[in-house]
Amino acid sequence: MAEHTVVFDAAAEVSVPRGTLLADAARKAGVEISQPCGGQGRCGRCAVKVTKDGVRRRSTLRLSAEDVEAGYALACQTVVEGDTEVTVPAQEKIARLLTTDRTVAQVQVPTGYSAAADQTIKRFGLTLTPPSMVDQTDDWSRFTAGLRQQAGIELGHISLPLMRQLGAVLREGEWQVTVVLDLAEEAAPRLIAALPGLLPDSAPLWGAAVDIGTTTVSLWLVDLLSGEVQVQTAEYNRQISRGEDVISRIIYGSKNDGGQEMRGLVLESIGQLLERGCRRAKIDASEVMKMTIVGNSTMMHLLLGIPAASIRLSPFVTAVNQVPPFRAEDVGIGIHPEATVDCIPGIASYVGADITAGVLSSGMDDTESISLFIDIGTNGEIVLGSHDWLVTCACSAGPAFEGAGVMHGMRATRGAIEEVWINGSTYEPSFRVIGGGQPQGVCGSGLLALLAEMFLTGILDKGGNLNSSLPTDRVREGEHGLEYVISWGHETKNGDGPANDIVITRVDVDNLIRAKASIYAGFTILADSVGFPLEAVDQVLVGGSFGKYINVEKAVQIGLLPDMPWEGFQFLGNTAVKGAYLALLDKHARARISDIASRMTYIELSADNSFFEAFTSALFLPHTDMDRFPTVAKALQPELETEE
Amino acid sequence: MAEHTVVFDAAAEVSVPRGTLLADAARKAGVEISQPCGGQGRCGRCAVKVTKDGVRRRSTLRLSAEDVEAGYALACQTVVEGDTEVTVPAQEKIARLLTTDRTVAQVQVPTGYSAAADQTIKRFGLTLTPPSMVDQTDDWSRFTAGLRQQAGIELGHISLPLMRQLGAVLREGEWQVTVVLDLAEEAAPRLIAALPGLLPDSAPLWGAAVDIGTTTVSLWLVDLLSGEVQVQTAEYNRQISRGEDVISRIIYGSKNDGGQEMRGLVLESIGQLLERGCRRAKIDASEVMKMTIVGNSTMMHLLLGIPAASIRLSPFVTAVNQVPPFRAEDVGIGIHPEATVDCIPGIASYVGADITAGVLSSGMDDTESISLFIDIGTNGEIVLGSHDWLVTCACSAGPAFEGAGVMHGMRATRGAIEEVWINGSTYEPSFRVIGGGQPQGVCGSGLLALLAEMFLTGILDKGGNLNSSLPTDRVREGEHGLEYVISWGHETKNGDGPANDIVITRVDVDNLIRAKASIYAGFTILADSVGFPLEAVDQVLVGGSFGKYINVEKAVQIGLLPDMPWEGFQFLGNTAVKGAYLALLDKHARARISDIASRMTYIELSADNSFFEAFTSALFLPHTDMDRFPTVAKALQPELETEE
Repeated sequence: MAEHTVVFDAAAEVSVPRGTLLADAARKAGVEISQPCGGQGRCGRCAVKVTKDGVRRRSTLRLSAEDVEAGYALACQTVVEGDTEVTVPAQEKIARLLTTDRTVAQVQVPTGYSAAADQTIKRFGLTLTPPSMVDQTDDWSRFTAGLRQQAGIELGHISLPLMRQLGAVLREGEWQVTVVLDLAEEAAPRLIAALPGLLPDSAPLWGAAVDIGTTTVSLWLVDLLSGEVQVQTAEYNRQISRGEDVISRIIYGSKNDGGQEMRGLVLESIGQLLERGCRRAKIDASEVMKMTIVGNSTMMHLLLGIPAASIRLSPFVTAVNQVPPFRAEDVGIGIHPEATVDCIPGIASYVGADITAGVLSSGMDDTESISLFIDIGTNGEIVLGSHDWLVTCACSAGPAFEGAGVMHGMRATRGAIEEVWINGSTYEPSFRVIGGGQPQGVCGSGLLALLAEMFLTGILDKGGNLNSSLPTDRVREGEHGLEYVISWGHETKNGDGPANDIVITRVDVDNLIRAKASIYAGFTILADSVGFPLEAVDQVLVGGSFGKYINVEKAVQIGLLPDMPWEGFQFLGNTAVKGAYLALLDKHARARISDIASRMTYIELSADNSFFEAFTSALFLPHTDMDRFPTVAKALQPELETEE
Repeated sequence: MAEHTVVFDAAAEVSVPRGTLLADAARKAGVEISQPCGGQGRCGRCAVKVTKDGVRRRSTLRLSAEDVEAGYALACQTVVEGDTEVTVPAQEKIARLLTTDRTVAQVQVPTGYSAAADQTIKRFGLTLTPPSMVDQTDDWSRFTAGLRQQAGIELGHISLPLMRQLGAVLREGEWQVTVVLDLAEEAAPRLIAALPGLLPDSAPLWGAAVDIGTTTVSLWLVDLLSGEVQVQTAEYNRQISRGEDVISRIIYGSKNDGGQEMRGLVLESIGQLLERGCRRAKIDASEVMKMTIVGNSTMMHLLLGIPAASIRLSPFVTAVNQVPPFRAEDVGIGIHPEATVDCIPGIASYVGADITAGVLSSGMDDTESISLFIDIGTNGEIVLGSHDWLVTCACSAGPAFEGAGVMHGMRATRGAIEEVWINGSTYEPSFRVIGGGQPQGVCGSGLLALLAEMFLTGILDKGGNLNSSLPTDRVREGEHGLEYVISWGHETKNGDGPANDIVITRVDVDNLIRAKASIYAGFTILADSVGFPLEAVDQVLVGGSFGKYINVEKAVQIGLLPDMPWEGFQFLGNTAVKGAYLALLDKHARARISDIASRMTYIELSADNSFFEAFTSALFLPHTDMDRFPTVAKALQPELETEE
């Protein structure tokens, strides 16, 4: 077989047979290429720039047309077919190619935050008297006496590794020592670190807030003294390579060493974020003294290595909702080994810490007005209530709104159609693509818009059936029944092979309608459970990054969100990591989350007899009961007239 | 070179060159032979039985003449010189050959011991309601609620590994579970174990008391419910192979990975005792839920992996005297990983937990009468006091009374001369040998008796000089000056080579006198420090296994012990392990040790100006000041007359 030469970064040269993956060639050349998704072409992290072209791209799913034009290729999806030269970009550059980091939020330090009053991690400098023949006190007693006298603290806990280091630390610092303590348990202060010498008061004291999403892990690095967020960073959860949704991860994690593997993968994701974040902050990860973590219940179990199988089996119980604090080393997180890892409490198998943290950061638990909080992802978690009461449920919406289970669905990354408009006369669409360029598929917000536009223009009827009698060739018979062509293949010029049309099929439409029906049925069950009319809700708070990009009007038109004045909707972005940040900073916020978790009433929809009826009623666009959607009914009126 | 065949246990056959060590031949044959001392011929654990003789024994130090007669040989000290057949005895059989276990004590359960009132480790059986669709409480909350309702306990601490197991344990036991808790910290009960199903109330709850001696490690297995000691076992401390005394161990432990190695060696010693003890008790080591450990400060530091260097360097401070409780897994001890390891507090670098525990078990802290407590080993630790006050000091006596630094000194094992009488007319000695048979050397109690007999018979004068003008050939000029022959070589028929005479030299006598002077000087400094006349002491309590075998009269005659009526002396055996046992059982005893540790005043002899004078005065037999030894002065009177 023919051999070709591949040169990496004008330095490492290797000869490989024709057809070798660039990723394998790189490995042979000793060049490191990141492959968090395991070489499945999904994460885009293995992007390299081909400077002398001798390759064939099998897939460019994670690259925009411009990127490909500029020479980029995914090393895991590209084979060598001639002599080739390649440069491997710095990971920072690849991160900018991708869009996971595009939701960086502006975060205000909470008004009135005071580390002295609110923070449980404290730092003190101690100056001790050296031992002598007339004062042979042991190091440990000398140290604890200093802490008692100079900081007023009676130490409760110390680990054996810290005990082993203490003597050397005291002598290295010539009997001056900086201590970091966790004072969360008032009765038993815990020593986190003893460092030689004294630090200036202005030196930051580092903490991290982490949201482990099923898809994306986010990490914020925070100075616990000022409260300021110094770095925000996010990355795909490496567990994706073992399953897209929580159910498939639980199944994988329950097999043989699957649990260990899942734990290792999410720890790797956190480790990668820590490395990147600490590089940006110019610190060592061992300087991080506390981490507060949120995530859905499955993510928390997998992180902690706690078997999650009971979550998916009736009667659907978690092993633990209120996780006690653990040491970072015990959890396996590479910050200071003695750092506190505080896992925020969840409520139930499918209403986790991401929701309790979300409720906190939404503020709905602290106001008299009645709010409806929703976080739409693979599951739609819903909370209804106020500072007097809170009820919650989880709807297994399925991953349709994340682009899975839909023929041309994709995540909200570069190349995804995120907004769609359809001309009511010609049935021709126009759309907006994330990052511009040619479309690769349709993400959740695009699917939502598409469904609404198709419905409003009469391409879909109330029952979700496509109308084949319209004067357009975009509605056609496909492999899976009727489908609508969003973008013709000849318009998408990527790759070498014949480009595919991007379509939405009848099956896709059914999946999307089931997803939205599941969520809307959740609203009605929650409202009915407390006898509160859904229409009387004061505000709808939409969390999660998905919520940030949807068009409310269209979400109402398809019956995903309740029909109420637009000013009542608020889009809050990643409420989970924000809640983790607030809990990391402020013990009062942390106590509020515990309070939220303990007083929120969970309603198990699969045990609720009225759920199926509510779901069935919602399996229409927007709903069987049009009285619930007066503005939609009004908007449809002219269309209906035209049709008739 | 000639090859010979060695057959092990009539099964494994191997051919080796002439001169090969039996231990090496065994390794080649894949036969496992224990070598705790590292093949130095000191521990005797590698004893094998030669059934077809083709060997030469280089050393039989750890074997009696009868054992050698019966065919025993040390594999590490025996070379192959012909075709040989060997059987490897079970380790239990070897243990009986040796004498480390000969000090097994009869232990009474303390009067009135009640596990319910006194023990901090508690066991409860819980029966929980299984989860259902109407009760989706998470496993952890269900468990903690059951503990609260059925045992009245609010759980404070759980480790992550236990949290991981909990769901499986609850389901395996069909929602019946046995829990073991540490309630020592009242505010924060700690979960040690959760086991599936319920146990009968009569099932033992296991704990272990351990004394880590510089020479010997002792372990008692105890049923914490009945308080009964079920197994007593002891073994050489494997650290011996890296140094005989604490100073040489600290030095070794301070080099490179020496600390890790020392820690590993003592952990191996404990592991071996656990294995043997648990086999005898027919339990698994993971059933042991608590271990209470005593030892001198160096032993405790080395066990915990805490650098011990500061102990031997001025100003002689330990890293820690009051060690907080740790988990067994953190310490590295192979009992239940969550079991509590409670290290008893020490006082100073050279007055450790063995002494505080010893004081407790002596009861001297609980009586109005004034006691003098001494534990003679490599160091002599002394405590003077009552329930009102306690003072302590450590005398660096050196290892002379353990048989080291003395030409024919040896430990108190089989073959050691342990008692000596000398005829005042003929100067001929008679003696008793441990285990009978031919003498190999002289152990501590034998040396003490020898010194006293030589002094009383005039072979030694007050200054420790040998009298060469006596009508006996036993006092003769040796390599190191004058010496006294205890046993002629022709009387000791062991081995093939010419047998040596067993002698005591002028240098040996000086070493022994310095050792006893150091201890007696300690007595006088302690008594002076509180202004209490030594002669007015009500009782002298002698701890340590050495103390168990010495002859009081002779100890007084050489000036090692103060001259007081014999009924005032008590010999308590291993007070350290007994104290550990009491503290393991009873939280009130444990609190008493803490109280002893905090109120005992430590006097640093090297900082005491009067010590040197006291030491110099004691460098005579029995002392410069004969008024301190009236009964000795009286006993000497006829001898002195004879001399004049």
